[in-house]
Amino acid sequence: MFREEIKVLDCTVRDGGIMNKWKFEDRFVKSVYDACVDAGIDYMEIGYKSSESAFSRSEVGPWRFCDDKDIRRVIGDEEPKVKLSAMCDIGRIDVEDIPPKEESAISMMRVACYAHQVDKAVKLAHECMDRGYETTINLMAVSKVNERDLDEALSDIAKSRVPIFYLVDSFGSMYCETIQMLMEKYKKAMPDKTIGIHAHNNMQLAMSNTVSAIIHGANMLDATLLGMGRGAGNCPMEILIAFLKNPKYRLLPLLKAIQDEVMPWQQKIDWGYHVPYLITGSMNEHPRSAMKWMDSEQKEDFVAFMKSMHDYELLE
Amino acid sequence: MFREEIKVLDCTVRDGGIMNKWKFEDRFVKSVYDACVDAGIDYMEIGYKSSESAFSRSEVGPWRFCDDKDIRRVIGDEEPKVKLSAMCDIGRIDVEDIPPKEESAISMMRVACYAHQVDKAVKLAHECMDRGYETTINLMAVSKVNERDLDEALSDIAKSRVPIFYLVDSFGSMYCETIQMLMEKYKKAMPDKTIGIHAHNNMQLAMSNTVSAIIHGANMLDATLLGMGRGAGNCPMEILIAFLKNPKYRLLPLLKAIQDEVMPWQQKIDWGYHVPYLITGSMNEHPRSAMKWMDSEQKEDFVAFMKSMHDYELLE
Repeated sequence: MFREEIKVLDCTVRDGGIMNKWKFEDRFVKSVYDACVDAGIDYMEIGYKSSESAFSRSEVGPWRFCDDKDIRRVIGDEEPKVKLSAMCDIGRIDVEDIPPKEESAISMMRVACYAHQVDKAVKLAHECMDRGYETTINLMAVSKVNERDLDEALSDIAKSRVPIFYLVDSFGSMYCETIQMLMEKYKKAMPDKTIGIHAHNNMQLAMSNTVSAIIHGANMLDATLLGMGRGAGNCPMEILIAFLKNPKYRLLPLLKAIQDEVMPWQQKIDWGYHVPYLITGSMNEHPRSAMKWMDSEQKEDFVAFMKSMHDYELLE
Repeated sequence: MFREEIKVLDCTVRDGGIMNKWKFEDRFVKSVYDACVDAGIDYMEIGYKSSESAFSRSEVGPWRFCDDKDIRRVIGDEEPKVKLSAMCDIGRIDVEDIPPKEESAISMMRVACYAHQVDKAVKLAHECMDRGYETTINLMAVSKVNERDLDEALSDIAKSRVPIFYLVDSFGSMYCETIQMLMEKYKKAMPDKTIGIHAHNNMQLAMSNTVSAIIHGANMLDATLLGMGRGAGNCPMEILIAFLKNPKYRLLPLLKAIQDEVMPWQQKIDWGYHVPYLITGSMNEHPRSAMKWMDSEQKEDFVAFMKSMHDYELLE
């Protein structure tokens, strides 16, 4: 699938960090960075940009803040060799805490929001643009939003100056038909914007939903090494790059980072497909109950987990 | 996705058995059988039908032969509550070793063959039909067959009396576009036959390729509990049933069998997505080299495995 406009974003540190509170050693982050550089990946999301007041540094690692002094310690003082991005959550970052682009190694701020926060997201994204950053808006949990509310949110984003808008399958609940329908809706609502795809793997569909989105016009693709990410994880970068067969990307540096740095984490934090994540995904629910279950001693009692879900008879 | 014609076949014992030489205890087979019955699954493939001369019973378990005395020990003497099937490999079964249907608990013989064996497969399938069995032909390794040879094979199968023909992704190398193309080709070549789908998970696409096949007309669907199967494994039954949302199927009995009997095997034989299977799948190669690698001490050296592949530079 060669299309010149396609760009790939690695969010291993940002989304994988949800599983370990962003407590990655510098060596891990450097390894992902080097792999992205060597593999020709277009963007690397190095974490969340948060205000110091939003979290305690005693509880979360440095990649919840993405301070430039932490970034520089990892990548050195030179111009970053892969564009770095950071994600901003509405309410957890004051725009005053975002330095002008000239003072930061970060190139792109991605603003994540729920449908009812779209106005705030547009405002923050515009402020980031005015500070010199590339920006995106990533509309989360869209599988829970009704048509009227979604159309209004899309209309508001369409009027903004933000050039990239993301289709996000927050709960890993979408099948290819949903991806197709939403891609068509998003393209129609904002024909001049680039559409991105960010998929989760609850039903082992993150990779194929990414491919479906590409087929229907998505040109910004999120993935993580070995699918590392919250709960069932994400679209695995190595599968995506093997699929794209684009001469600008290389697979081997990604495999090296996976075997050197990501596999050891797989032993410690068990992301990836597990039955409880299937259950929340296919019931279109947030994975938090499944993640809690997977942390308990009864994690392998799938029947009990399913019966603990409200309305489980729908799926029984 | 409700379509009355859809039938689901569980091949946990048959395909999962490739990973442990069919050395399942009766309790495991009974548990899968009970789960299929309770979940409303249409067919359960209980193993391969082989002649005693083809394998040694000291090396492989009973489900490589599917003798009726073994089957009856597990399911009892009554009429099977789910239709049982067995797979026949050309050259490993003499038709004389297949009893008439009235003397067997098996309902369906599925004949697996390569393109150059199609005539033999049709002959064996016809002989099975004459003995009273339902039959299918499952054409393997089609991703290595050129258009001319495939068209000839399809033409020969089209002329047969065998009512069901399978699209098989033996190497887990197919993307949704390939599935669509082959489904269209198969339907055109044999408009009166039912088309089935049997997918492998090397690129985490077994489930989505099964959905793609359904969308394009497949009505016989193969899956295994927790995706148990050779190498990267198969389409996971629990994900498929959650997707189908067909009132005749139930999810909970499948989850119970998974947690009671399949999860313990997952600890012992490590089927499922691993990078070496991605590499053979995306290079359209048989997984045997990846399976051998996964059995070696250097199983997590993915870079070395990739460099061991002929022509790996194509994917590098």
